[in-house]
Amino acid sequence: MSTTKFILSENELPESWYNIAADLPEPPAPPLNPGTKQPIGPEDLAPLFPMALIGQEVSAERYIEIPEEVRDAYRLYRPSPLHRAHRLEKALDTPAHIYYKNESVSPAGSHKPNTAIAQAYYNKQEGVTRIATETGAGQWGSALAMACNFMGIELKVYMVRVSYEQKPYRRSMMQVWGADVVPSPSPDTQAGRQMLEQDPESPGSLGMAISEAVEDAATRDDTKYSLGSVLNHVLLHQTIIGQEAIKQMEQAGEEPDVVIGCAGGGSNYAGIAFPFMRRRLAEGAKTRFVAAEPEACPSLTRGEYRYDFGDTAGMTPLMKVHTLGHTFVPPGIHAGGLRYHAMAPLICQLYDDGLIEAKAYHQIACFDAAVQFARTEGIIPAPESSHAIRAAIGEALEAKEAGESRVVLFNLSGHGYFDMGSYDKYFAGELQDYAYPAEAVAEAMKAVPAL
Amino acid sequence: MSTTKFILSENELPESWYNIAADLPEPPAPPLNPGTKQPIGPEDLAPLFPMALIGQEVSAERYIEIPEEVRDAYRLYRPSPLHRAHRLEKALDTPAHIYYKNESVSPAGSHKPNTAIAQAYYNKQEGVTRIATETGAGQWGSALAMACNFMGIELKVYMVRVSYEQKPYRRSMMQVWGADVVPSPSPDTQAGRQMLEQDPESPGSLGMAISEAVEDAATRDDTKYSLGSVLNHVLLHQTIIGQEAIKQMEQAGEEPDVVIGCAGGGSNYAGIAFPFMRRRLAEGAKTRFVAAEPEACPSLTRGEYRYDFGDTAGMTPLMKVHTLGHTFVPPGIHAGGLRYHAMAPLICQLYDDGLIEAKAYHQIACFDAAVQFARTEGIIPAPESSHAIRAAIGEALEAKEAGESRVVLFNLSGHGYFDMGSYDKYFAGELQDYAYPAEAVAEAMKAVPAL
Repeated sequence: MSTTKFILSENELPESWYNIAADLPEPPAPPLNPGTKQPIGPEDLAPLFPMALIGQEVSAERYIEIPEEVRDAYRLYRPSPLHRAHRLEKALDTPAHIYYKNESVSPAGSHKPNTAIAQAYYNKQEGVTRIATETGAGQWGSALAMACNFMGIELKVYMVRVSYEQKPYRRSMMQVWGADVVPSPSPDTQAGRQMLEQDPESPGSLGMAISEAVEDAATRDDTKYSLGSVLNHVLLHQTIIGQEAIKQMEQAGEEPDVVIGCAGGGSNYAGIAFPFMRRRLAEGAKTRFVAAEPEACPSLTRGEYRYDFGDTAGMTPLMKVHTLGHTFVPPGIHAGGLRYHAMAPLICQLYDDGLIEAKAYHQIACFDAAVQFARTEGIIPAPESSHAIRAAIGEALEAKEAGESRVVLFNLSGHGYFDMGSYDKYFAGELQDYAYPAEAVAEAMKAVPAL
Repeated sequence: MSTTKFILSENELPESWYNIAADLPEPPAPPLNPGTKQPIGPEDLAPLFPMALIGQEVSAERYIEIPEEVRDAYRLYRPSPLHRAHRLEKALDTPAHIYYKNESVSPAGSHKPNTAIAQAYYNKQEGVTRIATETGAGQWGSALAMACNFMGIELKVYMVRVSYEQKPYRRSMMQVWGADVVPSPSPDTQAGRQMLEQDPESPGSLGMAISEAVEDAATRDDTKYSLGSVLNHVLLHQTIIGQEAIKQMEQAGEEPDVVIGCAGGGSNYAGIAFPFMRRRLAEGAKTRFVAAEPEACPSLTRGEYRYDFGDTAGMTPLMKVHTLGHTFVPPGIHAGGLRYHAMAPLICQLYDDGLIEAKAYHQIACFDAAVQFARTEGIIPAPESSHAIRAAIGEALEAKEAGESRVVLFNLSGHGYFDMGSYDKYFAGELQDYAYPAEAVAEAMKAVPAL
């Protein structure tokens, strides 16, 4: 029997993160101040982020050392295993070899702690004693709750009210790790109070929750803000995934032909892809890269590449991204983490350069893939991760059709233990697919500011 | 920084299970036919179990080879990591070294797949195409659902109705793995129909669900029955835990002074303890053994050691156990897996011989320990496992008090992702402790048959 899991020892935990900015064909387009339309400087971000993270956001250093205290917390769950999906291959009767990096093994159940721990650490280093953040379904909030708890930092989480009520167990998790969680809109901020005045029954939205968390951080001296995806420093921290995967693929004695991940804000995909992308950019490797996104919110495959806001309310700097419009409200697919109108600028630039392909999938096809994966490999995937599985199965079936070998690597970004209600709906035939919402996108694009 | 996790490669996966019957000071007391009061033979069990498992139940071989197909499925999640709890030690400010074996990493989230996979395999080998089982909160049912799915065996799970309704996500999990799950009492069996006639709104009970599953298996030629704890062959399969832990403690360069686990039916504790017990029995090692049980259902610390039934309805053979009476209904503590009136006969014999100590804990103290563990080590434990954590913390604090070193090893039998509602109640101050229910036990003991 050949090997099922490729395991690294703690000695092999990478010592630095990989910063792709050092290897890009052209420098990244700078974020702009929405008032002046000029590139922003560190002082614009200082009220929200510690200087170390602002430095990483604009760094051109290829490798950035991971502080020992961060590596120490990583060791609770890292290095994460890389699996060969022998059973899935057999079920597909494919000549392709399928590998997956298993980020579901973290205590929060996803890749999110990789950056949460780093962010909490740098905040602590600069004397920050309190962080404010927003969360939708709760993957990010729970990861940051764990990280802040490790670093002795107080955490306030503004959780979208509808999720707070419908998905109470992610909230419970945050409370186990000591975070203060309130449903958003809340009476705790000016923005929240205004929203509640207009609609006391408001279900909330991610955009609203961001506004509350940003206001909280901007108006308190002891508090900074923290974001779980999109920004350069967040993607940077996730590159530990791909750096481990490179070593593990070497153990397996194979080189991936294609590297796949689901993409919402882009951080888990960047995490696995960028270290392999370095070898394509710097060493001429022929690896293909595929980002899997939902048909209901296909920012790469359908979005326009231009400057837009990162949040619904238009409070962030303008970033050059593939966007469906910052006011676009994606249909209610169950992969809540992929319901984002845009995509990390670094991913967008690589997509625009033709270095990353993107494929969009309907949710029912993704749940089909998730169930096939659970029944062969055991692990029940998160609905977000099921997009990556769908794409990987597609590659494996293409290889079978063509009668050729192919080495497929994807990132299993998280498990679905907190998403079983979605699986219930799938089995009950109550899931629906949403056609690409062309009209809503066209309307939202009108609100994108002209430069 | 010293090592946090001790990892084995797949090559180091144990090749056999350890059968403690070979090393016991006296042979185990045989199970008795409740009618004749004579020791039962294989033919009594043949309608319910495949011959290979009946053979393991009475085997005196010290080591029993693990079939390659079982090891192959184990490789999906085994060898499981052994962690050094540096952060918990620091929080306790103790000179003790605390290690834990992490069985929460299986796809079903507990140690249960270790026997589920083996049982499904042996059933398949003997041509069984369908298995019936019962489950309470769903840990066992979900593990067996995954295993039967791997082996291509149909599974029918009778799930206690109140859990079916209140804990729907374990049911969803079983459905993802293709099992047919019905609330018990169900209209699908004679026993269920009778129960429903008496009380159409019956919440069900584990005893009732066992009766349904046993009837299902006994009345269908294609169907066998499967049990997730208590029996010798179940404990045997779990010894892979302790055998891995021995190798990992060697990596760590330490020998445990005390080996701890929670004990309901006894299988996870036997799993970690028996391989270390062999070294005490055969090699004179001085290791102590502590089983942690709930104050509300303390079969070892308070039960009488005598022959009793394994199930509420009195359908099983009589086994020599520490029992609170097979009709005893334990108070509704959240550690559902520890609500069992008796304990595995092998554990009971070792307890009676003074080789295992037992300690009983109230649930609030266990949740205190669980939260301290989650906030230091990251992992949110199952309420059952929190009893082991409570005992481990107790040992570490004793060592601190005495100013002496002590090496503590415990089994983290599972995670608490499906138990977040219990944590909510803990934080809301809605959990209660139950005094030892002396009167109910005295009443139940009257129903224990005389020999």
